[in-house]
Amino acid sequence: MTTVTLTTDFGTADGYVGAMKGVIASIEPRARIDDLTHAIPAQDVRAAGYALYRSVPYWPAGTVHCAVVDPGVGSPRRAIAARAENGQYLVGPDSGVFTLFCPPFTDVEPQAVALTETRWWRDPAATSSTFHGRDVFAPVAAHLARMLLDNGAADLSVFGPPVPELERFELPRPVEDRGGGYRGEVLHVDHFGNAVTNLPERWVAHAGGQAVVEAGGKTMPVVRTYSDVRVGDLCAVVGSTGWLEVACRDDSAASRLGLAPGQPVVLKAAGRGA
Amino acid sequence: MTTVTLTTDFGTADGYVGAMKGVIASIEPRARIDDLTHAIPAQDVRAAGYALYRSVPYWPAGTVHCAVVDPGVGSPRRAIAARAENGQYLVGPDSGVFTLFCPPFTDVEPQAVALTETRWWRDPAATSSTFHGRDVFAPVAAHLARMLLDNGAADLSVFGPPVPELERFELPRPVEDRGGGYRGEVLHVDHFGNAVTNLPERWVAHAGGQAVVEAGGKTMPVVRTYSDVRVGDLCAVVGSTGWLEVACRDDSAASRLGLAPGQPVVLKAAGRGA
Amino acid sequence: MTTVTLTTDFGTADGYVGAMKGVIASIEPRARIDDLTHAIPAQDVRAAGYALYRSVPYWPAGTVHCAVVDPGVGSPRRAIAARAENGQYLVGPDSGVFTLFCPPFTDVEPQAVALTETRWWRDPAATSSTFHGRDVFAPVAAHLARMLLDNGAADLSVFGPPVPELERFELPRPVEDRGGGYRGEVLHVDHFGNAVTNLPERWVAHAGGQAVVEAGGKTMPVVRTYSDVRVGDLCAVVGSTGWLEVACRDDSAASRLGLAPGQPVVLKAAGRGA
Repeated sequence: MTTVTLTTDFGTADGYVGAMKGVIASIEPRARIDDLTHAIPAQDVRAAGYALYRSVPYWPAGTVHCAVVDPGVGSPRRAIAARAENGQYLVGPDSGVFTLFCPPFTDVEPQAVALTETRWWRDPAATSSTFHGRDVFAPVAAHLARMLLDNGAADLSVFGPPVPELERFELPRPVEDRGGGYRGEVLHVDHFGNAVTNLPERWVAHAGGQAVVEAGGKTMPVVRTYSDVRVGDLCAVVGSTGWLEVACRDDSAASRLGLAPGQPVVLKAAGRGA
Repeated sequence: MTTVTLTTDFGTADGYVGAMKGVIASIEPRARIDDLTHAIPAQDVRAAGYALYRSVPYWPAGTVHCAVVDPGVGSPRRAIAARAENGQYLVGPDSGVFTLFCPPFTDVEPQAVALTETRWWRDPAATSSTFHGRDVFAPVAAHLARMLLDNGAADLSVFGPPVPELERFELPRPVEDRGGGYRGEVLHVDHFGNAVTNLPERWVAHAGGQAVVEAGGKTMPVVRTYSDVRVGDLCAVVGSTGWLEVACRDDSAASRLGLAPGQPVVLKAAGRGA
Repeated sequence: MTTVTLTTDFGTADGYVGAMKGVIASIEPRARIDDLTHAIPAQDVRAAGYALYRSVPYWPAGTVHCAVVDPGVGSPRRAIAARAENGQYLVGPDSGVFTLFCPPFTDVEPQAVALTETRWWRDPAATSSTFHGRDVFAPVAAHLARMLLDNGAADLSVFGPPVPELERFELPRPVEDRGGGYRGEVLHVDHFGNAVTNLPERWVAHAGGQAVVEAGGKTMPVVRTYSDVRVGDLCAVVGSTGWLEVACRDDSAASRLGLAPGQPVVLKAAGRGA
């Protein structure tokens, strides 16, 4: 069994996602199609990158992940297919959506090609300049799934020439603070209003003693899980992908503290000055 | 064919649902994965309970329904798997989401176990304290699907010790009114603005003569379907799960009448005083 | 492999879609179930029609498309099944949702029947008057999928008598303007705020020279793709289904110009007066 997963910023209401699914089912009916999400905010390459990072590593090797968040559709931006660590295949625009499958987040660069061989496209003579999801990415993902189903492997070089390095967005780096703590920032606010930061789990122990977090003008304890504080109280927990999150039990920390991507978050030992 | 269905309050944008799907596909690629919904309001155990009640009974026996609305994740709340009436399997937190598959809504208590045997979890040494959907429930659902695919049956006792009675939320009971009618309340407002009440279908006939409903300060006739009244008119109909609903043809009754869960609804014979 | 696709205005949160999927899986477990969308605005038959038009033609012949946007549920409106061009099967209320699979948009009328033979329904004795998606359309779609899986073809006449002509909504026609251009209107605003018009691609060349579009009090160039203008600039492009769209690079043209369905859009040669 091979699955093609879909990640877009299309929403579903207009029928664009339905077209991509139809193209895949037409080319390779044996491939299963599973939605990761179509609710990425419009053209938000970072949000797509984080969503893929939270989903892709849990799929079996040989899964094809087609991700279309594509502010540059129709421009000379590259279209790519790649094989990432653990045998996950990635197909989409080279817009940065696959940032977290590249160094320094992985040990090796994904093996990638540019999708220039138009014979794998839906209809090379009728390729829309605004919808490569339907006309380029879905067909390539489906052909890739077919190769994996037939041969258990895929030779990406048939799709086009190698790409030495994928586009990536800059992920802000947390820094050691002169006061002895760590200074990071909010990367992403999730559906529950948890503010995911760029502060990694291993630094919590380094902070020493009872660690606390400062964000949005408040100080809150680092705890193991939400229910370690009272309903309505703020806290910080290590989230499910290993980054520190600012949370509020049974409420939205982001709303309570006015947090958004880019806002500073400090991790330090309790009682230590800023 | 065995399906694992998913019901969560996660939304899809963050990639959490994509992680659960990947875990299931990794453990049991033969299991089909179908979304029931990821749009349950955050931590709304009742809304999840009603959604499951409207969906689960229509699936074939041997379907695994994984439902994660989990305000107590990381706390000592139980994680459970159960076999409900008609051979439906349920996996999720013991948060009350499965209330409507328990007495008095069914004749017998589901056969349930607590998920304490960590060897069925994704990675017992690396279980997140905030995301049991990925680390506990999806893996158990997938292993359960594999047992059902291989043996046509599953022995739940391998997952942990029996649980005599699942947690359930209190469903408000409608009462006979001193004025001769029935007094119930709104349980749930649906996507169309229909206000589903706790007044059962069989009481409509008991109300006698032409039944009417009072809600939000208005009185409206009980009719067979929306088109029995004019566009824009209020009415009450027996909904598709057998409960009386307050509706408005081609509009939202909840908006028109300011209805929300908990608000009173009276069913009585037309012309009879309150 | 045969797929049943689903298109509704139900949202997913209430569990209605989950019920339809369960009914299909119970009747024909071999049929794959794929969501097109459940985000059609409530009772918006036109929006459903456009979404289906953008999705259905890309599926393999022998796919069953079940579309339930049904303002007249419970009224004497017809329920239908049909075979459209290219072997796509359509199941749903005869509410106009299938308008774009009928002449003049196709060469021939779909071969259609009315769903009057109740033996194909879920439980003829217990058919809800408010939820034919679960009780009529999902069962018929599943039985149709079974016929296609077993025989590679389906005899629609078993479901009921022929319907000579499906209901359709009026699609506004663009007209040649006295000033020399073409006068059309906005049909639909998509998820990105692009305003899809009823002006067909072939007229762009006819407009002569450098074509421009007037909409919402502004004039903008017709270009090949969004990135042919600067970020934040307005433009018009031929969209992926061949209709001219008013767009804004990296922003919502509909918000910027206050565009909604029905508003006028003029296509003409640059420099030519209105």
